[in-house]
Amino acid sequence: MGKGDETRIAVLDEAMEIARRVGLDGLTIGTLAEQTQLSKSGLFAHFKSKETLQIQVLEHARARFEEVVARPTLRAPRGEPRLRALFDLWLAWDMEPGGCPFIAASSELDDRPGPVREMFVRDQRDSNDMVATIFRTGISEGHFRADADPDQFVQDFCGVMFAAHQRVHLLGDAEAPARARRAFERLLSDARA
Amino acid sequence: MGKGDETRIAVLDEAMEIARRVGLDGLTIGTLAEQTQLSKSGLFAHFKSKETLQIQVLEHARARFEEVVARPTLRAPRGEPRLRALFDLWLAWDMEPGGCPFIAASSELDDRPGPVREMFVRDQRDSNDMVATIFRTGISEGHFRADADPDQFVQDFCGVMFAAHQRVHLLGDAEAPARARRAFERLLSDARA
Repeated sequence: MGKGDETRIAVLDEAMEIARRVGLDGLTIGTLAEQTQLSKSGLFAHFKSKETLQIQVLEHARARFEEVVARPTLRAPRGEPRLRALFDLWLAWDMEPGGCPFIAASSELDDRPGPVREMFVRDQRDSNDMVATIFRTGISEGHFRADADPDQFVQDFCGVMFAAHQRVHLLGDAEAPARARRAFERLLSDARA
Repeated sequence: MGKGDETRIAVLDEAMEIARRVGLDGLTIGTLAEQTQLSKSGLFAHFKSKETLQIQVLEHARARFEEVVARPTLRAPRGEPRLRALFDLWLAWDMEPGGCPFIAASSELDDRPGPVREMFVRDQRDSNDMVATIFRTGISEGHFRADADPDQFVQDFCGVMFAAHQRVHLLGDAEAPARARRAFERLLSDARA
């Protein structure tokens, strides 16, 4: 594997695509070598172990999520418009081939103690905190009721995403994104002042 | 492996528990032999391949789901009481160690064409139809609005379950089942006549 950052990013992009399709566990240095046409020994020298590869892929996926979902969301005005931006960008991110890699990782890692799970759990808590914080801007802007529960909203919001993901990626249901949007609108109208 | 049905069921129970923890892909004839202390060659003679093992485990999990969730649900009165019974039993099934095996299987199988995925997709459609049918008894009994959308309800109901599953099994959040219950109550009140 080349030493340049470009090669590194291209390899991690490919690794993330593989993990989206076959999960973190299906991603091996062998399959990655096949897909990137780089040598297995070069990749092994770089990543050292499957665990390091999994951690770097999750870090890479998190950086991509920040780039295409989190940062553009924060450019929207505080409150309901920002929450709408988050929903639109997140749903679009999950509608890419293979879907959101974190949803697959959730199921894979939930009963597997170790450093990969620990890092992923921290990331998921950060991501939930981000949703809660954006929801709270809706309370402080007066868009949502003062007694609306941000933790309830976060869990409900994730449920809308998870259900859309399963419907689209497993069942091939083209109506699922429109239903997810209706569910999201209902969450907003329940929270409104 | 013994020829009796009891042994077969005990082995499939163990295999289902393994799949709940490490996924269908983490379930191998080798790990199953370790857990059951049966011989690898005996298990291999019985299951022939990993794919057959995965199919039989999914069939076994479906039979268990029917026994502990679907059939007791149908003993409740039609309409809202039956939908409540379904929610309570399904949530309890997912709160067992490792959680609902179908949630993990959804992520594992969504991008893997083949007979295991095909069978699982059929089962998931049947399960969604069951939820839709029970919801429709609520329309015909006059508990829910005539124009309430059963497909929307099914997707929203699954979202509530998926989010509770992730919160409990990945994040260890003890409040998640109570939030799932509040989300379910809101789905019911939105559907009410």
